Amino acid sequence: MRINGLKKRLAENQVDAYLITNVKNVYYFTGFMDIAGAELSLLVPVDDVPLLLTPPLSFTAARETASDCLVEEVPVGDEPLNRLVTELKNQQIRVVGFDDLSIAWYLSLTQELGSTRFMQNQSMVWGLRRVKDEEEIHFMKKAAALTDAGATVGMEFVGDGVREYEVAAEIEYEMRRRGSEGVAFETVVASGPRSAYPHGLSTDRIIKRGDSVVMDLGAVYRGYRSDITRTVIVGKPALNQVRVLNLVMAAQEEAFKAIRDGVNARDIDTIARNIIEAEGYGRYFIHGLGHGVGLDIHEPPRLSQQSTDCLKAGNVVTDEPGIYLPGFGVRIEDTVLVHGKNGERLTRANYFEG
Amino acid sequence: MRINGLKKRLAENQVDAYLITNVKNVYYFTGFMDIAGAELSLLVPVDDVPLLLTPPLSFTAARETASDCLVEEVPVGDEPLNRLVTELKNQQIRVVGFDDLSIAWYLSLTQELGSTRFMQNQSMVWGLRRVKDEEEIHFMKKAAALTDAGATVGMEFVGDGVREYEVAAEIEYEMRRRGSEGVAFETVVASGPRSAYPHGLSTDRIIKRGDSVVMDLGAVYRGYRSDITRTVIVGKPALNQVRVLNLVMAAQEEAFKAIRDGVNARDIDTIARNIIEAEGYGRYFIHGLGHGVGLDIHEPPRLSQQSTDCLKAGNVVTDEPGIYLPGFGVRIEDTVLVHGKNGERLTRANYFEG
Repeated sequence: MRINGLKKRLAENQVDAYLITNVKNVYYFTGFMDIAGAELSLLVPVDDVPLLLTPPLSFTAARETASDCLVEEVPVGDEPLNRLVTELKNQQIRVVGFDDLSIAWYLSLTQELGSTRFMQNQSMVWGLRRVKDEEEIHFMKKAAALTDAGATVGMEFVGDGVREYEVAAEIEYEMRRRGSEGVAFETVVASGPRSAYPHGLSTDRIIKRGDSVVMDLGAVYRGYRSDITRTVIVGKPALNQVRVLNLVMAAQEEAFKAIRDGVNARDIDTIARNIIEAEGYGRYFIHGLGHGVGLDIHEPPRLSQQSTDCLKAGNVVTDEPGIYLPGFGVRIEDTVLVHGKNGERLTRANYFEG
Repeated sequence: MRINGLKKRLAENQVDAYLITNVKNVYYFTGFMDIAGAELSLLVPVDDVPLLLTPPLSFTAARETASDCLVEEVPVGDEPLNRLVTELKNQQIRVVGFDDLSIAWYLSLTQELGSTRFMQNQSMVWGLRRVKDEEEIHFMKKAAALTDAGATVGMEFVGDGVREYEVAAEIEYEMRRRGSEGVAFETVVASGPRSAYPHGLSTDRIIKRGDSVVMDLGAVYRGYRSDITRTVIVGKPALNQVRVLNLVMAAQEEAFKAIRDGVNARDIDTIARNIIEAEGYGRYFIHGLGHGVGLDIHEPPRLSQQSTDCLKAGNVVTDEPGIYLPGFGVRIEDTVLVHGKNGERLTRANYFEG
C-alpha cells in the first residue's frame, strides 16, 4: 500500500495529515484515475483511513475502483472545502501538508482554521513517485513499446510533401490503436526552420527535401508516460546536418553510459554538455539534458546544471541533448530506467528509418 | 488588440498591473502558443507595454510570434520571479491582479513586496475570453467541423467485438489527419456498464451487442476546442434504452431552443432538467447541463442550477444532458454559439449512424 509510505513520511515529519488535490497523486495512492481537472480531494491523516471526496459525476467510478480509502460524494451545490474544514476540525488536525492548492483554497483554509498550519510539501509525494516499483516499471515498458511503434511509423511516413500534422496523425494513430491512452504530451513534428524550436508542436507546414524534422512523442499506458525524440533529415543530408546529428547522438550515448544509481544528475548533464561544447555548439544546447518521467511527463529528478538530484535505482529519466541552430535543430531522446550499475533504455526505436 | 480590453478593466478597477502565468491567457493576448506547463510570465502594466518573460527554450518562438509585448529571455539558472520583483519595484506598482500563481510564487511575491497588494482576479480575463470575437468564432467553427468528422467515424466504427480504445483511435486519427491539433480532451468511449460513468475515458473493454456506447470527443484548431457527445446502442436497442435516449435528445433540443443572449444560464439547465425529472429520471442527471468552451474545454459561463451567469451573444457553450442508470448511460451534447435571438449548433454530426 503506497499510502503507508506517505504516512511514514508524515509521522517522521510531525505532520498530522496530507491533503492531495492533484488527480495523478490520487491515482498513485488509490488506483482511481479521473480526468485532468476533476475536483478530487484526498485527505490522508497520519493514523486514520484516508478520505476521498468526489463530485457526483465521479462518485460511482471512484467507489468501484479506489482502494485504501473511504469514498464520499460531495453533493452538487455543496463545497468540498467546507467538508474538509469540518473533517480537519473534527480530527483536531494541527499540521497539514499538501501537494497543491489553488490560491483561493489556500487562503480560505488558512483563514477558516487559524490555528492549523498548512504547508506545501511536494517532496513527500515525489520522494515516493520518483522511485518506480515493479508494477510501474511494467507499465512504463508497455508505454515505451507503444512509443517505439509511434516513432517508427513517424520515421517511415515523414517525407517530402507531407504536412507536419499528417505525420503527427500517423504517429498518434499507431500508438492509440495499439492501446495507448492518448498521447503523453502534444506531439512535436517540427520541420525545417521550425526544428529549431524545442516546443515546436505540429503545424500545417509542408515538409521539404533537406529539412531537419524533429519528432518528439510519447504514449501512455495505465497513466504512465514515455518520451522519445528522433530527428531525420529528408533526402540527402547536408554536411553540417550530419555533423550536428552525429554530435547529438554521441552526447546522448555518452550520457547514457554514465547513468546509474548514486550518480549526480548534474554530472550526467555535464557529460553531454562537454561533448557538445567541445565542438563549439554549447550555446545552442538551450535546455537541461533530461527530466524524470512517470505519471507526469516532466517530474523529478531533473538532469541539468541546476539540479541537486542524485539518481537512484528505479528512477526513469530522459536523456535528450539538442542543438538548435538558426535554420535547423536536432534532438535525440530516449527514456531510461536507472539500475544499480547501469541505465536501461526503455525506448529503443532505431535512430534512422528502417 | 485584446490587451487593450484588459488594460481598460485594470484602469476601471484601479489595478496597476496584471500578471499572467496561464499559457492560454498568454496566447489569447499575444498570439504566442507554448506547450502546457511552459514557464511564461506576462506582466501587463495599465499604461505601459506588456513584458513577456520566457525560458531560453521558448524564446525564439516567442520573439517571432508574440505581438503587442516585449519578449525577454530569462537565462537558465535565473529565477523569473526575481525579474518580476525588480520590474514591479522599478515601475512602483502597488496593486497587481493575477490569473493564477503557484502557492510558492504567491508567498514569495507577497513577502518580497510587502507594500504591494496581490489579488487573484480571473474574471477580468474571463470577461473578455468568454465573449468570442469573429476570428475566434471562425476557429471554433473549424474545430467543430473536425469534431463532427471524428464523431461520424466513431459512430460508423463502433460495433460488436471492437475495443473501446480502437474506436477512440479511429476518432482521433480522423480529426488529426484533417488538421486537428491533438484532442480537446481525453476521448471518452464508454460502453456497456461503463457508459454510466460520465468521465469514462476509453479502456480495452470489448464492445458487445446491446451495449450503450457514449462517445465524447473534441478537436482543436488554433488552440480553440469543440465538444460533442453521441450515444449509440449496438445492435437492436432495448425499449428502456430507446426511451432514455429519446428523453435525453428531447431535453437537449428544448434547452437548445431557449439559448439566446440575455437568458440566465440556470434557466437553460432548468428546461432540460424539468423534462428529465418529469419522466422520473431526475436523480440520474448528475451534472450541470453545460459549460463554456474556447481555448479551454471547461470555462465560463456554466449552465447549471448553481450558475449565476447570464448568456451573452458570442458565448460558446455545451448543451449536454445525460442520464446515468446502473448498467447504462446516455449523454447527447453539442457545442452551441449564442446569438442575439437564438443559438447556433457548431457541432452537427448526425445523432445516429448514417
